[in-house]
Amino acid sequence: MHMQGIDALLLSVGPDLPWLTGFAAMAMERLSMLVLPVEGRPVLILPAFEADLVHDREDLMDLVPWLETDDPIALVARSLGAHHTGNLAIGDHTWSRFLVALQAEMPEARWQQASKVVSSLRAQKDPAEIDALARAGAGVDQIAAQLQAGEIPLIGRSEVAIAADIEARILANGHKKVNFCIVGSGPNSSSPHHHTGDRVVQAGEPILFDFGGTTAEADGTPGYCSDTTRMIFTGEPPMEYAEAYAALKAAQEAGVQAAVVGTAAELVDRAARDVLTEAGLGQYFTHRLGHGIGVEAHEDPYLVGGNDRPLAAGNAFSVEPGFYIDGKWGARIEDIVVATNNGPRRLNNSSRELAIVEA
Amino acid sequence: MHMQGIDALLLSVGPDLPWLTGFAAMAMERLSMLVLPVEGRPVLILPAFEADLVHDREDLMDLVPWLETDDPIALVARSLGAHHTGNLAIGDHTWSRFLVALQAEMPEARWQQASKVVSSLRAQKDPAEIDALARAGAGVDQIAAQLQAGEIPLIGRSEVAIAADIEARILANGHKKVNFCIVGSGPNSSSPHHHTGDRVVQAGEPILFDFGGTTAEADGTPGYCSDTTRMIFTGEPPMEYAEAYAALKAAQEAGVQAAVVGTAAELVDRAARDVLTEAGLGQYFTHRLGHGIGVEAHEDPYLVGGNDRPLAAGNAFSVEPGFYIDGKWGARIEDIVVATNNGPRRLNNSSRELAIVEA
Repeated sequence: MHMQGIDALLLSVGPDLPWLTGFAAMAMERLSMLVLPVEGRPVLILPAFEADLVHDREDLMDLVPWLETDDPIALVARSLGAHHTGNLAIGDHTWSRFLVALQAEMPEARWQQASKVVSSLRAQKDPAEIDALARAGAGVDQIAAQLQAGEIPLIGRSEVAIAADIEARILANGHKKVNFCIVGSGPNSSSPHHHTGDRVVQAGEPILFDFGGTTAEADGTPGYCSDTTRMIFTGEPPMEYAEAYAALKAAQEAGVQAAVVGTAAELVDRAARDVLTEAGLGQYFTHRLGHGIGVEAHEDPYLVGGNDRPLAAGNAFSVEPGFYIDGKWGARIEDIVVATNNGPRRLNNSSRELAIVEA
Repeated sequence: MHMQGIDALLLSVGPDLPWLTGFAAMAMERLSMLVLPVEGRPVLILPAFEADLVHDREDLMDLVPWLETDDPIALVARSLGAHHTGNLAIGDHTWSRFLVALQAEMPEARWQQASKVVSSLRAQKDPAEIDALARAGAGVDQIAAQLQAGEIPLIGRSEVAIAADIEARILANGHKKVNFCIVGSGPNSSSPHHHTGDRVVQAGEPILFDFGGTTAEADGTPGYCSDTTRMIFTGEPPMEYAEAYAALKAAQEAGVQAAVVGTAAELVDRAARDVLTEAGLGQYFTHRLGHGIGVEAHEDPYLVGGNDRPLAAGNAFSVEPGFYIDGKWGARIEDIVVATNNGPRRLNNSSRELAIVEA
C-alpha cells in the first residue's frame, strides 16, 4: 500500500477478506466491511448481531458493530479518519451499491481496485497453499479417472444426470462446494461454457467434462479450488477428430512446458496457441490459455495476449487450450500448473489421452 | 428512468438482469453487462464464446460479443453513446472492480444505484410471482411440519448433521439451491445468525430452525425464495421460556396484522416490537422485523425503523420478530407475508406453536 500510495483498503464480500483474516462477510444488504489503513489497526464494521461470530478475532482488528437503524456507510467514513479524502482501494467483489454510497459520503476520495494491492500477494502461493491446491486437484483427478474407466455410465443418459453424479463425487472428494460442472456432449462440446442440459449422450461422439469445486478446510471454511477438463469419446473417434485431439494434447504440453518462472504470461498462451495454429486449428481456439486459481476459481495471473507480466514462483494457473468447431464438436484439456523454481509442476495427473468408452 | 432522470441502466451479476431478461451474467472476471438506455434498444456486452447461449434473446437486445483481448469496459462506454457523460445507474451487485474501471473510462458520468429504478418494480409482485413464492413457502412448511412431528431426529445429533437433513429436503422440495440453514441449539439460539456448528443437541433446550432456498423454475433456472423460522424445545420448556415464547407469538401475529397496504414499513416493525417491549423483551429484539423477498432472499421493502415508505399491494416480506438472551437462549418466528388489497396473506402455514419433541 505504501508503494502504491494507497491510504486504506476497504474489503467486504469476496475472497480477499477471508484470505487475510479468516472472516468472510455475508453477501447481503447489511454491510460488513474491513477498513485496513496503511498504518494502524484495521477496523471491522459489521451488523451488531453478528459481532459474536468474530469476537475471537479481536486480536486482529477492532470491531465496530452497527445497529439496525445505524448508517454503516457513515461508520466506514468515520473509521477512515483523515484518509476519507485519500486514495482508497475497494474490494473487487464489493457490491456497487456500497461503493456508490461510499462515494456520495466521501466525495473527495479517489478510488482504485483492491486487487492492485491484494492480487499479487494472493497470486504467489506459499507451500501450504500449493499443498491445498494439490489436494483439491487429486480430488477431481480421481473423478476424471473414474469417467475414463467407464465407471460412470454415459451413453443414453442426459448431461444433467451425468453432471449430478460428478457433482456428488466432487462433494464426496473433499470439496465444500461445486463451482461448475460442464458436461458438453456431441455438438455441445463446441460451446466452451456450455450450459449442461437435457441432451442425451449418443454413441460415436465426444464429451467435454470440465469440473471443479472449492475444498473444505479442516474447520469447515472454504479452502482452495480445483479445475480440470478431460475428453471422452463414446466409441472410436473419426481420424479427423483424433488428429485434432493429438494437436491439442501437444499444445497443452507446450503450454505447460512454457510456464517457467520469468516468462511473460502471454508467451505461455502463445506457446500453446502456436501448436494449434500450425495444425490449422488456431482459429478454433477462441479463448485465453488459462487463469490463476487459489481461493478463487479465477484470479491472477491470466495467461492471455496482452499480459506481459512474468510468471513468479508460486503462481498457480490453468493451462487449458481447446478447439471449438461450431455446431460440430470441440475439445479442451486442462490442468492446474504451478510455476516453481524447479520448473512447471502439474497439479492434475489423470490421463490426458482421449479416453474411449465403448458404445 | 424518465421520472428519475436516469439515462441508462447498467446491469451485470445479480438478480435484476435475469429478472428483466431471463439471462444471468456469470459471476466472473469476464464482464457481461446489459446497457439499457432510457430510450432505444438495450445492448448486451458479453464474452464472445458465450454469445451462443443468448442468441435466442436477440429479440430483446443487441449482442456485442467481445474477444479475449478486447476491452469490455470500452465497449460499454461506446454502447452508451452520448449518455457516457450522463446519469448512469449501476446494478447493485455489480462488482466494484467494474464500476471503478467504468468511472475511469467515463470520468464525467454521475452514478447511482440501479435499485432506485428496479427495486420498486421488483417489490410489487404480480399474481404469478406470488404463486411462485407460495409454492416455495409450501416446500419449507412441509419440512417445518416434519421437524415438529419429530420425523427428523434431533437429540444427540450435531447441528450440522441436522442441517444436512434439512438441506437435502429443501432440494427435494422444489428448490434449486439452499440459501441458508440455521440450526441454533441451546445457547446458540441466542445468536440470530448463528453459524450452524458441531454442538450436539441436548434434552431440555430450545432449537432455532431458520431455513430457505430458491426454487427451480420449470426450465431449470432459479425462481423465487423461501424463508421460514420455527422453534422446537427438546422436552417441556421452563415457564420463563414458555411465557417469553407466548409474547413472541403475539408479537409476530401483531406484525402480520399490521402489514396492511398503505401502512409505513416502520410501523409494521413497531407493531411487533411494542408487544415484545410490553412483555419486557424489547431490548432482546435486536434486529429489524423483516425484509422483502422475491428472486432475492433479501430485497425491498425492509420493515425497519426509519423506512416510512407505505406498503404496496404485492409487496412480499418476512415478519420475523425474535428475542435473544445472550448465552442463554433465544427464539424467532418467521413467516413470509404478502400485502394484498384484501389484507395481509401469510405464505407460511406450518404451526407457530412451540413444538415439543420428547427427550
